[in-house]
Amino acid sequence: MDVNVMVILGFGFLCTFPVRYGFSGSGFNLLVAAIATQWAIILNNIESLYYRRKIRLDMESLVVAELCTASALVSIGAMLGKTNPVQLILISLLEVSGFILNKWLLQSFLKLQLVNSIMMLHIFGALFGLMLTWIVCWKGSEEPFEKERSDRKSGLFSMLGAVFLWMFWPSFISVLVHDSPERKLWVVCSTYLALAVSAVVAVVVSVLSSPKGKLNLIHMQSCIFAGGVAVGVSISVVHQPWEAMTIGFVAAIVSAIGFRYLKSHMLLAFHCHDTCAILSTHGLPGLLGWLAHLLLQIKDYDDPTMAIRFAVFHICTLLITITLSLSMGITTGLLLKWNFWRPPQHNKCFDDQAFWEFPHLAVRK
Amino acid sequence: MDVNVMVILGFGFLCTFPVRYGFSGSGFNLLVAAIATQWAIILNNIESLYYRRKIRLDMESLVVAELCTASALVSIGAMLGKTNPVQLILISLLEVSGFILNKWLLQSFLKLQLVNSIMMLHIFGALFGLMLTWIVCWKGSEEPFEKERSDRKSGLFSMLGAVFLWMFWPSFISVLVHDSPERKLWVVCSTYLALAVSAVVAVVVSVLSSPKGKLNLIHMQSCIFAGGVAVGVSISVVHQPWEAMTIGFVAAIVSAIGFRYLKSHMLLAFHCHDTCAILSTHGLPGLLGWLAHLLLQIKDYDDPTMAIRFAVFHICTLLITITLSLSMGITTGLLLKWNFWRPPQHNKCFDDQAFWEFPHLAVRK
Amino acid sequence: MDVNVMVILGFGFLCTFPVRYGFSGSGFNLLVAAIATQWAIILNNIESLYYRRKIRLDMESLVVAELCTASALVSIGAMLGKTNPVQLILISLLEVSGFILNKWLLQSFLKLQLVNSIMMLHIFGALFGLMLTWIVCWKGSEEPFEKERSDRKSGLFSMLGAVFLWMFWPSFISVLVHDSPERKLWVVCSTYLALAVSAVVAVVVSVLSSPKGKLNLIHMQSCIFAGGVAVGVSISVVHQPWEAMTIGFVAAIVSAIGFRYLKSHMLLAFHCHDTCAILSTHGLPGLLGWLAHLLLQIKDYDDPTMAIRFAVFHICTLLITITLSLSMGITTGLLLKWNFWRPPQHNKCFDDQAFWEFPHLAVRK
Repeated sequence: MDVNVMVILGFGFLCTFPVRYGFSGSGFNLLVAAIATQWAIILNNIESLYYRRKIRLDMESLVVAELCTASALVSIGAMLGKTNPVQLILISLLEVSGFILNKWLLQSFLKLQLVNSIMMLHIFGALFGLMLTWIVCWKGSEEPFEKERSDRKSGLFSMLGAVFLWMFWPSFISVLVHDSPERKLWVVCSTYLALAVSAVVAVVVSVLSSPKGKLNLIHMQSCIFAGGVAVGVSISVVHQPWEAMTIGFVAAIVSAIGFRYLKSHMLLAFHCHDTCAILSTHGLPGLLGWLAHLLLQIKDYDDPTMAIRFAVFHICTLLITITLSLSMGITTGLLLKWNFWRPPQHNKCFDDQAFWEFPHLAVRK
Repeated sequence: MDVNVMVILGFGFLCTFPVRYGFSGSGFNLLVAAIATQWAIILNNIESLYYRRKIRLDMESLVVAELCTASALVSIGAMLGKTNPVQLILISLLEVSGFILNKWLLQSFLKLQLVNSIMMLHIFGALFGLMLTWIVCWKGSEEPFEKERSDRKSGLFSMLGAVFLWMFWPSFISVLVHDSPERKLWVVCSTYLALAVSAVVAVVVSVLSSPKGKLNLIHMQSCIFAGGVAVGVSISVVHQPWEAMTIGFVAAIVSAIGFRYLKSHMLLAFHCHDTCAILSTHGLPGLLGWLAHLLLQIKDYDDPTMAIRFAVFHICTLLITITLSLSMGITTGLLLKWNFWRPPQHNKCFDDQAFWEFPHLAVRK
Repeated sequence: MDVNVMVILGFGFLCTFPVRYGFSGSGFNLLVAAIATQWAIILNNIESLYYRRKIRLDMESLVVAELCTASALVSIGAMLGKTNPVQLILISLLEVSGFILNKWLLQSFLKLQLVNSIMMLHIFGALFGLMLTWIVCWKGSEEPFEKERSDRKSGLFSMLGAVFLWMFWPSFISVLVHDSPERKLWVVCSTYLALAVSAVVAVVVSVLSSPKGKLNLIHMQSCIFAGGVAVGVSISVVHQPWEAMTIGFVAAIVSAIGFRYLKSHMLLAFHCHDTCAILSTHGLPGLLGWLAHLLLQIKDYDDPTMAIRFAVFHICTLLITITLSLSMGITTGLLLKWNFWRPPQHNKCFDDQAFWEFPHLAVRK
C-alpha cells in the first residue's frame, strides 16, 4: 500500500522539473491520481457491480487500481505543461478506461495472467500519450516552449522524485507476484540488479554521447528506470541474475540513445512534442521487455510447435495493446482539440501562474 | 514505527512554507518531536513507574507517545513563527501533559477505548493552539507579518511534506487498530477513499470560491487532510465505503470554506492569528468526525435508551476535551506572555536569522 | 530492503548542501551506490564463487552489500566536491574491497559476529576518508574553497536527507539483528531513544558553543546522528534503555564539540580538509561506541580473566580496522594523486558545471 502511493509521489515530483511549473506538476498529479484511482476501482469491479450490486474493496483491488493510475500518469507525462486541469482529468479518465478495457480483453480472450497484462501499462501509457500529444499539439510546436527549462533547485526536486521511484521500483514490481515469498524476494533482488546496471550504463552512455563529455540530469533521471521498466514487463520469465542484468543493460542503452536523438527528431519530423520523453523512458524499454519475455519463454520450450504457438499468442497481445492505445489516444486527442475545453495559450504553457494564486508574490514579481 | 516517524517528517516539512522560515520550521519540529516523545513516554508510564519503579518500553508505548507528540505539533502549527525555541519546548511539554491528562480522564472515568481517546488529538491540539495564539498574540496582530509568505521553492517543500502526510495517513490511523488484520486493511482502504474524495473536493471548492478561479497551494495542502482527520476520529464506527466517502466529502467542504473565510475573520474579530490554519485543518474536521461517530453509532443501536445513553456519554467526552484544552491553552498562554522568555520582536517573526547562523551568507545578503 | 535503499537516499540528499553542487551530490551518490553494491555482492561471494562457481544472491547478501556501500559513502563524504566521477568510482571500489577484506579478517581470525564486524563501517569509512583527503588535498587547502557554502534552499534539501537518515536509522541498525522479533523491536526502541537524546543534546551544545547563541543547521544535521552511530557500534551489548540514552548523550556532546572546534583545527594543523566533517560525525562516535561496547561487555563478566581476554580481543579488532583503513586510505590517496585521472582544478571544486550540462541555463547565467 505505502509502496504504491510512494510510486505516485515519485511520479509527482519527477514532474516538477520545469522551473515555473512545480506547483502544477505536483498538485495536478495528486489530483489526477486521486480521481483516476477511484475511477479504476469502479471500472475494475463493474462486473461484480452488475451481478452482485456491490463493489469489492480490498487491498488487491486498490493495488490494481493504483497500477492503472500509474499508466495514466505515464500518458500525462507527454502532455505535461500543455493542458489545463480539466483536460488532464478527462485524459486520465479516458486513459484508465482504455487501459482497463485492454486488460479485460487480454485476460478474457488470451487468458493472460494479471501480472503480465498489468505490466503492459508502460507500452499502453506511452503510445496513448504520444498519440495525444501528436494530435493536440500539431500546430505551434514549431517554436520551442520558452518556459520549458529547469533550474538548479527544480532539478533537485525532480531528482528527489527520481530517486524515490528508483528505490521503490522493486516493490512496485513485486507487489503483484503472489506465488511464494521466495519468488517475491527473488523478484526484488533481480529488479534491483537490473536497476543498478541500468543506472551505471545510463550514466556512461550519457557521457559518451555528449559532445563535451558532461552529464545531463534530466537524461539521467529518465534512463535509470529503463532497466526497471524492461524487467517489469518480462518479470514472469526471468529466472537468472544475468538475464535481469542483460535486460537492464540493453534497456539503458536503448533508452539513453533514444533520449539523446529521438526526442528532437520526433519534434522535427512529426511535430510531436513529448515533454517527459515517455517514448524513450517507458515506450522503448517496455517493447524491449516484451521482446525479452518472448525470447526467454521460447528458449524454455523444447517443443518448436509450442514455441511458435506462444510467439503468435504473445505477438497478438502486443498488437491488441498497440491498436487499442493508438486508437484511444487519437480519439482522446480529437476530443481535446475541441475549443470547449479552453486549452492554455501557447505562451502560457509551462507556467504556474495560469492556474495558481500567488497572493503574496504579487508585489515581488 | 517508520510510519509514525514519517508523520513527523510530514509535519516538519509542511511547516516550511514561510519563505524565510524553512530552517526553523523543520529544525524546531525535529527538536520538539524528540523532546515531546520522551516526555510522553515518561508520562504514559507514570503509573507503572510508581508501582513497579520501571518504565515499560515497547513498540506500543512508543507509538502512543508519538501520537501524543503529533497533538503537540498540531498546537505548534498555530504558533509557528511567533515564538522562540525555548517557548516551543515549553508549549510542547505542557501540551503533551495536558493531552495525556485528558486521555487518562477519558480512559479512567468514561472507559473510552484507547483508539478513540487518542484520536481526540486533533480537537485537543487545535483548541489548545488557538487559545495559545489568542492569548500570546493579542497585541501586534493588527498589522500582518511581513515575512509570512511563501515562494515557489518553499511552496514545493511544503507540498512535499503534505504529500508525505497524505500518503502515510492511512498507516497513521490504522496503527492503533489491533482487532484483526482484515479490520486493519479495511481501515487503510476506507481512510484512503476518504482522503481521495477529500482531495478532489478540496480542489473543486478552492477553485469555486476563488474570485479568478485559480488554485491556492497552501489552501490545497490543508484541505486534502480534512477527510483523513474526520475519518480518523470516527474510524471505530465506519463500516461502509460510502460512509467514509461521505465523511471525507463533508469534511473537505467544511475545511475549504473555513480556510477561505474563517482565517481572516478570526484575525479581524478576535485578533487571533492562526499561522497554519489549524482550526479549519484539524479543529473543524475533528468536530465533524466526532459528530459522524455520534450519528453512526446511534444509527447502529436499535434501542433508543441505549442511543441516548451513548449520546450523553459521547457529548461528555467532547466537553471534557474542550474544557481541558481551552483551560490548558489559556494557562500556557499566560505563562508564555511572561517576559522572562524573551519572545521574538514582531518584526523578527518568521525570520530564520533570529535563531540560525548563516556564516557563508554574511556577504551575500 | 526499502529501508537500506532509503539510507542511500538519505546519504545522497545529505550531500546536497553546497549550493552549486546539488546535482553532483545526489547524482554521483546514486552512481557510486549502484556500482559499489554490485562490487560488494561479487566480493562477498568470492569464496562461494571459487568453490561452487555460483554467486549466492538473496536478501541477506544484498543487505550486507548495501552496508558495505554505506561505508564507501561515508568515505566519500570527506572527498565531496574535490574529485571527478571517475575518481569517486575508483575510491568506492577500493574502499569496498578494503572494508570487505577487513570484515573477512575479523570474521575469520577473531570469530567476530557479522553484526559487530559490519558496524565497524563507521570507523573504517571515516579513517579511510580522512587519510584520502589528507593525501590528495595536501596542497591548495590553505585557502578555503570559495564555492563551499550552502544557501537557504540547498540547506533545506540537506535537512530533508538528514531527517530521512534520522528516521530510518533504527531500521538500518535492526536489519542485521536476527535473534528474535522481540530483540529486533528492542533494538529499534533503544536506537530511537539514543537518537532522540542525541538530537536534543546536539542542539543544546550547538547553541551553547556558538558565540551569539544561534543554531547552525549543518552542525545540527551532523550531530543528531552521533547517538545512532555510537549505539549502532555497541548494539549487541546494550540491554537497558538508560545505557542507550547515556551513549547517545555522550556521543552527541563529543560530536558537537568535535564539529565546532576540530574541523577548522584539522584544516590548519594537518592541511586536512574534511567536507562533511566525517571525523566528528562517524569517526568519534564510532570510537565511542566501540569503547561503550568494551565497558558494557566487561561489566557483564564476573570473571576478571574473561574480561581481560575480551578486552585484548576487542582492542585487536579495533587495531586491525584502524591499520587496514589507514593503509588502504594512504594507498588509494597516492593512486588518486596520479595526474592520469585529471582531478578538477581548485577553483572548479564544488561546482556542478564541471560535470553537468545546463543547456537551458546557457543564457541565464
